[in-house]
Amino acid sequence: MPARNRQIHLAARPEAEPAPKHFDLVETSVPDPGPGEILVRNLWMSVDPYMRGRMWDRPSYVPPFQVGEPLEGGAVGEVIGGDGHPAGTLVVHNLGWREYAVVPARHALPIDPDLAPPQTYLGVLGMPGLTAYVGLLDIGGLREGDVVFVSAAAGAVGSLAGQIAKARGHRVIGSAGSPEKVAYVRDELGFDEAFSYRDGPVARSLHQAAPDGIDLYFDNVGGDHLEAALGALRVNGRVTLCGAIAFYNSATATGPRNLGLAIGKRLTLRGFIVSDHQDRREAFLAEVGGLLREGKVAARATVVEGIERAPSAFIGLLSGENTGKMLVRLADQ
Amino acid sequence: MPARNRQIHLAARPEAEPAPKHFDLVETSVPDPGPGEILVRNLWMSVDPYMRGRMWDRPSYVPPFQVGEPLEGGAVGEVIGGDGHPAGTLVVHNLGWREYAVVPARHALPIDPDLAPPQTYLGVLGMPGLTAYVGLLDIGGLREGDVVFVSAAAGAVGSLAGQIAKARGHRVIGSAGSPEKVAYVRDELGFDEAFSYRDGPVARSLHQAAPDGIDLYFDNVGGDHLEAALGALRVNGRVTLCGAIAFYNSATATGPRNLGLAIGKRLTLRGFIVSDHQDRREAFLAEVGGLLREGKVAARATVVEGIERAPSAFIGLLSGENTGKMLVRLADQ
Repeated sequence: MPARNRQIHLAARPEAEPAPKHFDLVETSVPDPGPGEILVRNLWMSVDPYMRGRMWDRPSYVPPFQVGEPLEGGAVGEVIGGDGHPAGTLVVHNLGWREYAVVPARHALPIDPDLAPPQTYLGVLGMPGLTAYVGLLDIGGLREGDVVFVSAAAGAVGSLAGQIAKARGHRVIGSAGSPEKVAYVRDELGFDEAFSYRDGPVARSLHQAAPDGIDLYFDNVGGDHLEAALGALRVNGRVTLCGAIAFYNSATATGPRNLGLAIGKRLTLRGFIVSDHQDRREAFLAEVGGLLREGKVAARATVVEGIERAPSAFIGLLSGENTGKMLVRLADQ
Repeated sequence: MPARNRQIHLAARPEAEPAPKHFDLVETSVPDPGPGEILVRNLWMSVDPYMRGRMWDRPSYVPPFQVGEPLEGGAVGEVIGGDGHPAGTLVVHNLGWREYAVVPARHALPIDPDLAPPQTYLGVLGMPGLTAYVGLLDIGGLREGDVVFVSAAAGAVGSLAGQIAKARGHRVIGSAGSPEKVAYVRDELGFDEAFSYRDGPVARSLHQAAPDGIDLYFDNVGGDHLEAALGALRVNGRVTLCGAIAFYNSATATGPRNLGLAIGKRLTLRGFIVSDHQDRREAFLAEVGGLLREGKVAARATVVEGIERAPSAFIGLLSGENTGKMLVRLADQ
């Protein structure tokens, strides 16, 4: 049995960009699982943009993180004790940010390591993947012939949303934050067009990429992307409101000045939270697992080694240092 | 046969608030109806907020008005010549802003003057009424138990939207622009709560009126109303984007800074144009006609006399001088 566990606590609430001072690395003993619980040795943990929202002390769809308490987030690990899953089982669960986790067995989902490497269940086959799938099909109501625009297209959610749309035969445009990411989005992910939002006004770049307009905007960033998309959307267009990373570090924001266009264009904007849509998991795994097996889904990851680097991985994620899924490797299998 | 017709032309495009100089009163001969056309003597014409949008020279869901050409808008009149409807028939059509109109017979809809006075077909039983009905039920997806908030609640659309919701058993809150209108909304229209948006921040007034939040916001104004509503909406709430009168006189606008709340709250915002929903006219007339017969719908009108006063009626409408439907009486029956 391991003697010591290391985990990351929220040291203080960031008012703007998170910095190292907002995180503490804390050493604890490894807790014992109680009845119905398993002890998991975490192999991989995920850092995701939505976690920034939980650092504010404000009511939201998930309770805020507490100062002095460990953070939480998606993780994949190996069961090493407790009851509910046999030792050796690989599971995905939500108690990352620590090397060892005691997890209620019913909150840990066994994964199939034959289909894909374990960390895939934190990305393409995990929460970001289901988010892309539901956001595109259920929330965005993807229809035949739709031209699709995806922001943060090099990120975990955006890259898959665009690839699902491509696999279904759509014209897909993506935005990202650097020439390298733009090349990745176009050349590796196969988007029809991609541009860097740092190269000029988003509205201009989007118009060049889609001069005849778009039908569905998968919004991961908010801000000027959303405003540009509202301008480019055609009649009966739709916006999937999935993320607003532009404002995660800010308590205030600016809104799209042209939202009034939604009236004449008969637009629908719809927000969602992936946890409401677990009933779509089976259909999602069938479609995206199939694409993965056929080699039709590319997914880069940016990997950081060791739990002590999880805070800097998270800080880097919010400033766009990652390409694809941002992961922290905690241990070898 | 009448010798002369008077009509209102757009003299120049207003850049901000419309003023008398933007309108010309022009005298013409009365045109002759051609094949399939009727000559209508207009009795009532409607001034509606959406007309402001047609004064901008920009692409929209209806073509812009042209400088030097007559304006258009809803009107009720009596057929006095032509073919397609017998002389004496009362019809509703879209060629207002003139005393005599030549209208394609298929664009003129006979009305039933036994159900309600003719001008009712420009308000409760007309385009504003269908807008309220479709916006509340089809676009807003009114559900049992919904708490409903309606802005511009003393206006033609808002007053009916709130009354339909009340008749269906909902708790309804309205905002308006003066103490007199607030009293009208609460005492005559029967809203549960009403407040003046001039009395303080809309967010505060809305919170006082609906401390537990709202489920459906019927938006006729945009601006700070929309922002306040996004703050007050509960999970799975909906916004009917029907109008944005706050910005009709402005080429630019500010957007709701808190639109990101739509993600965690799973909100849907949906814009619409009533002309897409003519298939709902029968159901609308059945329900609202029934309410009208039972005396369950109150509807004030602000009436201005004579076509020469139509421009000032329109200018007054945009600054909120009307209570209920704004009408111009052109002739007696």
